Amino acid sequence: MSDILDRLGETLEARKNASPDSSYVAKLYAKGTDAILKKIGEEATETVMAAKDGQAEKIIYEVADLWFHTCVLLAHAGLKPSDVLNELARREGLSGLVEKANRNE
Amino acid sequence: MSDILDRLGETLEARKNASPDSSYVAKLYAKGTDAILKKIGEEATETVMAAKDGQAEKIIYEVADLWFHTCVLLAHAGLKPSDVLNELARREGLSGLVEKANRNE
Amino acid sequence: MSDILDRLGETLEARKNASPDSSYVAKLYAKGTDAILKKIGEEATETVMAAKDGQAEKIIYEVADLWFHTCVLLAHAGLKPSDVLNELARREGLSGLVEKANRNE
Amino acid sequence: MSDILDRLGETLEARKNASPDSSYVAKLYAKGTDAILKKIGEEATETVMAAKDGQAEKIIYEVADLWFHTCVLLAHAGLKPSDVLNELARREGLSGLVEKANRNE
Repeated sequence: MSDILDRLGETLEARKNASPDSSYVAKLYAKGTDAILKKIGEEATETVMAAKDGQAEKIIYEVADLWFHTCVLLAHAGLKPSDVLNELARREGLSGLVEKANRNE
Repeated sequence: MSDILDRLGETLEARKNASPDSSYVAKLYAKGTDAILKKIGEEATETVMAAKDGQAEKIIYEVADLWFHTCVLLAHAGLKPSDVLNELARREGLSGLVEKANRNE
Repeated sequence: MSDILDRLGETLEARKNASPDSSYVAKLYAKGTDAILKKIGEEATETVMAAKDGQAEKIIYEVADLWFHTCVLLAHAGLKPSDVLNELARREGLSGLVEKANRNE
Repeated sequence: MSDILDRLGETLEARKNASPDSSYVAKLYAKGTDAILKKIGEEATETVMAAKDGQAEKIIYEVADLWFHTCVLLAHAGLKPSDVLNELARREGLSGLVEKANRNE
């Protein structure tokens, strides 16, 4: 399952130079930070509703929407999904693991 | 950066059998779905505030909090981070890549 | 300033019988609870962003949006703004005041 | 039901001068805007969960919490509940009514 978020980060980065009407993400960038944040609030709410409905597929779909839009925010702020993964690794005490993975890259 | 979310998923899965007072996550599980969802709403709001403040480190920290608690929700619902990553891969048309990665595992 | 929320509640109640394409609210009712809740999540996020921007007019505008959509939820659930105001009064220990107001009506 | 929000606004205004440890609201003011906004995000999420549960009393309770904390935000920003009610009245075309009410005060 590796690298999907990294790849998503690269795709989102590449779309920064695209024309606003070329894609959904390019349009979001053009609208600016508030439009991206509004989506994050919306998708968080939809995740909550999906969980209350207790439907596995809906939960997966809405969490994917939420993670996707947080990745758009990261790209818009000049950050990458790996910045967040590193923070999670740091918290979990997995830093040794990350260092090993980095050496292998 | 690979496998950090998978590993987090495994850690969260393992804590399901732990006593409620053994860890933060075990306590959240014991409180139930609503307590987890409340945290997701809270962390989404904190992500929005961090982005408005325009501080990179704070954005990373809050998105990590948000992803972490969505992973707790996934575990609580019997799901895994890879379910969400697969959905993101499917959307990005990266399914070929995922299949290849799975074969290599 | 009295009665504005009561009047809004009556207007929202009356629109329940309207055709879905007759107004914004009638369309929201037809879409159902999830659509209304999505708007509440969205407007709460916009309230947070307005407050971070520190612009008084924007705060007023977004809180009005948020209160409006919670009133739509109340109507959809067979409730009234006064149910919420009574709860607030009860908490503030203003129950005596409310009783007096009710006697005067 | 009149005046409850106005009265709440006055109470919240009065607590601005209180010591942080004198009340819940005084503590929130002392913590600052972000703490108030975090509560708004939290209460909006709890409103969504209550509505999904379909329990009338819980909806009333959570909407009251949400309105209360938006009133705390208004006070913190130097605004009043009546500013929001006026905006709602303006939208509903009730401005004539408001003017009449103001003349009677």
